[in-house]
Amino acid sequence: MTDFGPKIMAMAEHLAQWSDVPGSLTCAYLTPAHRQTAAQLREWMVAAGMDVKIDAVGNVVGRYAGARPGGKTLMTGSHYDTVRNGGKYDGRLGIVLPIAVIAELNRAGRRLPFDLEVIGFAEEEGVRFSATLMGSRAVVGRFDPTALGRRDANGISVAEAMLDAGLDPSAIPGVARRREDVLAFLEVHIEQGPVLLDAGLPVGVVTGIAGSTRHLVTITGTAGHAGTVPMQLRHDAAAAAAEIVLYVEKRCSFAPGLVGTVGKLAVPQGAINVIPGICELSLDIRAGDDATRDLAIADVLVEIDQLAARRGVKIEVAEVMRGPAVPCAPRLQALFAASIARAGVPVRHLPSGAGHDAMLFDGFCDLAMLFVRCGNGGISHNPLETMTAGDADLAARIFLDTLEHY
Amino acid sequence: MTDFGPKIMAMAEHLAQWSDVPGSLTCAYLTPAHRQTAAQLREWMVAAGMDVKIDAVGNVVGRYAGARPGGKTLMTGSHYDTVRNGGKYDGRLGIVLPIAVIAELNRAGRRLPFDLEVIGFAEEEGVRFSATLMGSRAVVGRFDPTALGRRDANGISVAEAMLDAGLDPSAIPGVARRREDVLAFLEVHIEQGPVLLDAGLPVGVVTGIAGSTRHLVTITGTAGHAGTVPMQLRHDAAAAAAEIVLYVEKRCSFAPGLVGTVGKLAVPQGAINVIPGICELSLDIRAGDDATRDLAIADVLVEIDQLAARRGVKIEVAEVMRGPAVPCAPRLQALFAASIARAGVPVRHLPSGAGHDAMLFDGFCDLAMLFVRCGNGGISHNPLETMTAGDADLAARIFLDTLEHY
Repeated sequence: MTDFGPKIMAMAEHLAQWSDVPGSLTCAYLTPAHRQTAAQLREWMVAAGMDVKIDAVGNVVGRYAGARPGGKTLMTGSHYDTVRNGGKYDGRLGIVLPIAVIAELNRAGRRLPFDLEVIGFAEEEGVRFSATLMGSRAVVGRFDPTALGRRDANGISVAEAMLDAGLDPSAIPGVARRREDVLAFLEVHIEQGPVLLDAGLPVGVVTGIAGSTRHLVTITGTAGHAGTVPMQLRHDAAAAAAEIVLYVEKRCSFAPGLVGTVGKLAVPQGAINVIPGICELSLDIRAGDDATRDLAIADVLVEIDQLAARRGVKIEVAEVMRGPAVPCAPRLQALFAASIARAGVPVRHLPSGAGHDAMLFDGFCDLAMLFVRCGNGGISHNPLETMTAGDADLAARIFLDTLEHY
Repeated sequence: MTDFGPKIMAMAEHLAQWSDVPGSLTCAYLTPAHRQTAAQLREWMVAAGMDVKIDAVGNVVGRYAGARPGGKTLMTGSHYDTVRNGGKYDGRLGIVLPIAVIAELNRAGRRLPFDLEVIGFAEEEGVRFSATLMGSRAVVGRFDPTALGRRDANGISVAEAMLDAGLDPSAIPGVARRREDVLAFLEVHIEQGPVLLDAGLPVGVVTGIAGSTRHLVTITGTAGHAGTVPMQLRHDAAAAAAEIVLYVEKRCSFAPGLVGTVGKLAVPQGAINVIPGICELSLDIRAGDDATRDLAIADVLVEIDQLAARRGVKIEVAEVMRGPAVPCAPRLQALFAASIARAGVPVRHLPSGAGHDAMLFDGFCDLAMLFVRCGNGGISHNPLETMTAGDADLAARIFLDTLEHY
């Protein structure tokens, strides 16, 4: 059999040439780089023997017809958008790996006993419009129509960007699949963390996806002259923000699997000689179980109330996302585990701290994920994200074996 | 004699109509609003009987000729640029008050025994180009030519902005005065703090201007996925920044007259689900004496080194400004004090925590400042900055009396 590794690595490398920002990989929803990436995915899918279409939200959908027409569909895929200055494998591995596997099936003239659909989801990261997972939401019929009105930093709305890209927002409801047509959703993804690397294992079976809650926090203090207001009389919005940052860090260090991040932090139009009157920050808190996460959030909110009163500042907190923890189907975990064991690799189960397109399929169909080892200490959302061709090859063989034993 | 108060208040109100940002007062160097403000100052100076020119950096310079030609010149003035979303009196009071006083002298056909020059300095705050005090630097021959290459957020350099405004950067050296021609520099300024308000006094004599040091700090940690990197393995640039913010606040609360401010704070292009790899902040530390300030800065730098090592982040600190504490001339303080006493007002001496154009005249000629009470708790660099017409009138009478007794 062919060595999948070099082909998968070359495909990921090839896609990384298209970026919104030269010299780094940034591929935000419906930018020129994003549309070139979609066109390339379509071309590869066609070459691999699939029927391909780009749907109303920009998902690139390839269908490799099964041996018998009219059967159910097994779905797989991941996202092709990236964070700003991101890595080459996050999301994209879960598209190009199945394409490489299907190309091999097609070359050998083999068909599976079901239709296999590979989806390159157009939007997962939420970079451009602060609306996440738009691609997979559309597929499971949970696209939020109010997202069409969200605007990017240049004031362009989602709907306008879609029309500009030749997509028809009014056709989004038609993207939704019918549950009765779908067997399951499988997602291959780079781990984006250090667990498999530390364990010396190339792949792992995901037990579930951590619940994630996001808040946006706006602190309003009193602006003033940096030289003339005594420290005791200040209501400094940035100092209040600093207390929140450090409390989140401390509180989320208490429980295993719990993580808390302030990813956005800014004094809007801050000046060196002006006491900050406003400071804005974001809060992302996750845990493997919802109770652990909700307890941490409750503590953070109490701390915010207390420090607001103590410092004489106003703090507004808006929850912008809440996703419960999502379990992977035991029968599918067992399928992946059996394929891994047949490949002679020790089976490791691990939770996913990151959210993924797969979680949208919770309640729609059975879902499962296969993690592939992440190099460089497990770093992701970063140009240093890396993986090996050997791991890519092994993951592809295990994925093919899983398809053959489904 | 005329009541100066309403006229001064109306002039400040009138200038506030020109702003770079509708609905607030923002007047940055050489923007259209800034140039309209300069044109209005020129018109008022001409109407008050002055010979007026706009010099190569954009300073509006009005000269009210003395009784005898060829005598020395007494200089006064302040800046007409503002911070973002600033107040109406900061800087501008020190231009419109002398204009109102000279208009009265001119109306009465009176001449002083020396030339009196009123300067509206074009640039003090450093908002657009992060280069401060460009107007007064040019006048005392300390303009830094490298400032011409500084660029604003749109990539426009100081030199380009000057040429666009019809100014000639090559003529800046010619703006510098000769020491032997100058008697002294006097600056009237709103206090921008709560000291006179608390004391129930309309004006005060400034003893000196606090030394101010500014640093820009860049923290480089490791970006990563907000869901997958355990708290213990993070090198979060924003968390390191938060520690600095809180340490500066704590350390600068120890000594009277010492203040420390982090006015700029930002994770560039931060995303909710990405651990900050970079965070940038500014540091502004001031004290009435240089030793107090330098001790605080040294402690902050030690703390920064320690937390960088503890957190495994790189922190670069660049000093971008260092101004020593500047004393006001005792003989001029005594002149102001005598005028205040003649007006029947208790004499209060106080230091200035803010930097002012006057400090550039240290080592060039004797300098002094008259502070006017700031309302609303002493708030400044803020639209809520306010003062009363009664205080403006009294300050103008005292200033006129000082001129008459010089």
